[in-house]
Amino acid sequence: MSCVFCDIVRGEAPASFVHQDEDVVAFLDIRPFTTGHLLVVPRAHAVGLGDLDEDLGAKLWRIAQRLGGALRRSGLRCDGVNLFLADGAAAFQEVFHFHLHVIPRFRGDRVRLRAKPRTPDRGELDQVAAAVRDAGL
Amino acid sequence: MSCVFCDIVRGEAPASFVHQDEDVVAFLDIRPFTTGHLLVVPRAHAVGLGDLDEDLGAKLWRIAQRLGGALRRSGLRCDGVNLFLADGAAAFQEVFHFHLHVIPRFRGDRVRLRAKPRTPDRGELDQVAAAVRDAGL
Repeated sequence: MSCVFCDIVRGEAPASFVHQDEDVVAFLDIRPFTTGHLLVVPRAHAVGLGDLDEDLGAKLWRIAQRLGGALRRSGLRCDGVNLFLADGAAAFQEVFHFHLHVIPRFRGDRVRLRAKPRTPDRGELDQVAAAVRDAGL
Repeated sequence: MSCVFCDIVRGEAPASFVHQDEDVVAFLDIRPFTTGHLLVVPRAHAVGLGDLDEDLGAKLWRIAQRLGGALRRSGLRCDGVNLFLADGAAAFQEVFHFHLHVIPRFRGDRVRLRAKPRTPDRGELDQVAAAVRDAGL
């Protein structure tokens, strides 16, 4: 039942912090896509969107938004920023303690997002939208 | 100065909506990575993290978190969810009205994220963290 991010939160594993408050910590990813790649992490253990307290999620987002600005002001190479959340193994989650990636981006950084986008017609889009609406918020 | 998402917000361009309130709309991406790929969009025009009101950003996140749950309950294929924000052309932004992607994921969906992660030593990580902290939140 060990969790490396819980260990970091407790100070029992090393991390290079950029922010710490009573609810949230942020530190450098040890396998950065680019220099300055950050993780914003709740102190309280949660796995994903389904078990993360919504108010805490909103606070994580606020910290991430501010850290995006900090990266742009930091002097590190940063022409753009990605915020990225992987909820579930099928979505690339590898550490099962919630973490929001904040990734500085620049031209030529060799980060690639690849997919095979479709172009469904409006009838199909409307059907899919109805399925999502029916599930409720 | 035309903006397709402003047109959608005003009802002057088509969209398949999954959520609408006084501040935020969410609708299907017309070039979905996977079926059910959503965009969460502020009604008020903002380009990126730098000019998005922070309270509005937190609200966008809350809607996105709930939509992630709706996708999992919708009957669409959804074993995981990515939330993804592209802030700036260098970070893959293509429409310059803020939008948070909510992407249902499943094994074999052919979405790929590729990078060349480094493994900097702790001294380098601490130096980078100091640069980010010095920029301030």
